[in-house]
Amino acid sequence: MVMLMPETRINSVYLHDLFEELSDIGATRQGGVHRLALSNEDLEARSWFAEQIEMLGFALRDDDVGNLSGVLRCSNMNAKTLLIGSHLDSAPNGGRYDGAIGILAGLECLRVIKERGLDLPFHLEVIDFTDEEGSWQSLYGSMGLTGTLTEAHISDSKTDNAPFRAALNRAGINPYDYLNARRDPNSLLGYLELHIEQSDFLEQNNLNIGVVSRVVGRSSFKIRFIGEAVHAATNYAKKRDALLGAACFITDVHSLAQEFAGGMVNCGSIDIQPNRVTIVPSYAKVKMEVRHPDPATLAQMEEKVAEIAKQCALHHQLEVRVERTLHRDVVYMNDTLMQSVESVCDELNLSHTRMVSLAGHDAQILAPFTPSALIFIPCKDGISMNPKEYTDWSNVENGANVLLKTILRIAEQF
Amino acid sequence: MVMLMPETRINSVYLHDLFEELSDIGATRQGGVHRLALSNEDLEARSWFAEQIEMLGFALRDDDVGNLSGVLRCSNMNAKTLLIGSHLDSAPNGGRYDGAIGILAGLECLRVIKERGLDLPFHLEVIDFTDEEGSWQSLYGSMGLTGTLTEAHISDSKTDNAPFRAALNRAGINPYDYLNARRDPNSLLGYLELHIEQSDFLEQNNLNIGVVSRVVGRSSFKIRFIGEAVHAATNYAKKRDALLGAACFITDVHSLAQEFAGGMVNCGSIDIQPNRVTIVPSYAKVKMEVRHPDPATLAQMEEKVAEIAKQCALHHQLEVRVERTLHRDVVYMNDTLMQSVESVCDELNLSHTRMVSLAGHDAQILAPFTPSALIFIPCKDGISMNPKEYTDWSNVENGANVLLKTILRIAEQF
Repeated sequence: MVMLMPETRINSVYLHDLFEELSDIGATRQGGVHRLALSNEDLEARSWFAEQIEMLGFALRDDDVGNLSGVLRCSNMNAKTLLIGSHLDSAPNGGRYDGAIGILAGLECLRVIKERGLDLPFHLEVIDFTDEEGSWQSLYGSMGLTGTLTEAHISDSKTDNAPFRAALNRAGINPYDYLNARRDPNSLLGYLELHIEQSDFLEQNNLNIGVVSRVVGRSSFKIRFIGEAVHAATNYAKKRDALLGAACFITDVHSLAQEFAGGMVNCGSIDIQPNRVTIVPSYAKVKMEVRHPDPATLAQMEEKVAEIAKQCALHHQLEVRVERTLHRDVVYMNDTLMQSVESVCDELNLSHTRMVSLAGHDAQILAPFTPSALIFIPCKDGISMNPKEYTDWSNVENGANVLLKTILRIAEQF
Repeated sequence: MVMLMPETRINSVYLHDLFEELSDIGATRQGGVHRLALSNEDLEARSWFAEQIEMLGFALRDDDVGNLSGVLRCSNMNAKTLLIGSHLDSAPNGGRYDGAIGILAGLECLRVIKERGLDLPFHLEVIDFTDEEGSWQSLYGSMGLTGTLTEAHISDSKTDNAPFRAALNRAGINPYDYLNARRDPNSLLGYLELHIEQSDFLEQNNLNIGVVSRVVGRSSFKIRFIGEAVHAATNYAKKRDALLGAACFITDVHSLAQEFAGGMVNCGSIDIQPNRVTIVPSYAKVKMEVRHPDPATLAQMEEKVAEIAKQCALHHQLEVRVERTLHRDVVYMNDTLMQSVESVCDELNLSHTRMVSLAGHDAQILAPFTPSALIFIPCKDGISMNPKEYTDWSNVENGANVLLKTILRIAEQF
């Protein structure tokens, strides 16, 4: 049992300095960051993070999927570890808060606890997970830690993963050693993650903190429309225009977001062949995804995706291939940890709500492995993965204090 | 006045041998050809063509835009030149007939006329025009010959033309010498081109020969939809999805082909950013074109293109920029030459019709410069720019004989 001084708080100035320093790494002209996983910018951010860890006197730890941690060891060497994590990598031309806030607030929590000389009944580890954003394989680091990676993640007959392996090798990580990164779940006490919401639910409802109860399920599809490349002047009746089929699909499939309340649809990628203005496109590959917090509804949405693709293909005389490339189940957060976060919010006089995360996070990979909590702070206008991503600094301060207090609450209740 | 032996015909076996040899250069597994302008395959085809010219004892000629010719000189060194042309380059994974037939039939005409010892009242030149298909700049060779190229074709602030210049240099052509390629129109008697139809009008109407009266006007557009890259989980009301706007445009703009009979619409190219499945696309660039044989109707179609783009942008809260990147006027072929072709068809007992070309051809660049005729043969199922492109060999034979007889008719009427 740890005795808490009531005024234990993060130092907002220290935290803000860290945030400004990190935001300079891979900074874009529009005010965001471009720190793709394993890029020069990401490696620079990791190296900067390692320096902070060493300057603050924590143990530096890394593993065979490139996760990088700072550890504040407690006096009981056999104690379990409480992980505080998120990611330093960003989406292309992304925002400064996404991922970064979780790591920096975690680091500040370790600093405050060390400064206060608190001997917790567990080791405290702040961890940067590799490639959360999926520049190569989304959630790679957290999947490595939980032992859910397979060889297909680094070597796959359908995709050329050689550049990914090269990027890992360059960062000093042997891609084929990924199994070594798995941690023993019995060595872990749990996982906490602080993150910006990436939608506008908290802002719209004027709330300080979101306590994520579950992360939506998500299914990604690769949908290929196959027609025929012919001269643009070909008789219309004979045209089999793959782009027209894809456009039909993109237009129609978005209606699923209205049809299934709480659901989400995104068509984020399209590539066509031969991509020449005077030639009817013969091939269009659309990458898209649907998300929903209810597993049964998600399954219905998946069926509809395939149905709409087939209807559009039929209408435009195309072949179509619908392939589900990724599926992530709906993931539930730990109820005891949620209650701890809620009681901390009450103590700090912060308004809060339980909510669904529509975005994916490392926490969803950790949750089936170790008790996990995911704490959201508001996101201005719900704009994220964008240089405009913003949250008032008071929100970051609130979130970091909730994180700190939750760690201490877990220690109290140990 | 030349005395004609009634049996003057092309040698179908010789012509077919040439066709088979040429079709091997850049042959694709699907049975087509991939001979992009100035590629290794195109250079090999040009070198093969030069060999044929020299073996047959014609004068080899080239110019400063890479056009390559064989010339059968008549005895009057001051005579004008009748050009017979088309192109050896192909569309990506294109067909074997498109362009090739025009060159090879031309070469065979020269061979027959030389073999017969006919001294025409004009020089006869078979010419391969550089990059008709627009791997770099469509109709580059014919524009060079007619002096309609501008510096922007090889050096442009908006496009990086350095690779094009490098390809020209590699082929031994100094890009900046393009003005030297212009011929004196007074040195030319006219231009004849034989080509596969690339649509199914002749086939549908069971006709042997199409006498092109005009080539459709064509306007190409670059349409850019600009939204915002945000996380896929963003509130729908705040999403400004550029791909959704583009899909709306592609779906809607195709209706113009129905609305304006005889018109044509093709959306052949799309590129989006950031092209990531979990991110709402912030940018979509669609390249498309409209064609119509009537100039006033084409202008109406152009207005509608811009209108539809604006409507879709408005509907999806996007910015839009509509840029007309290319405009080619409706081009009319020479009536006297058309009559010559028609009388030759009658003499050969070949059914024929005047028709519009929906496709672009070197003849449309030559027509305003020198009297020109464009002769079509049927195209199976109207499929072109595709490995399946096919026409029965008897059609090629017919077309080549029409070409030969038309040359002789011009000589008779000289």
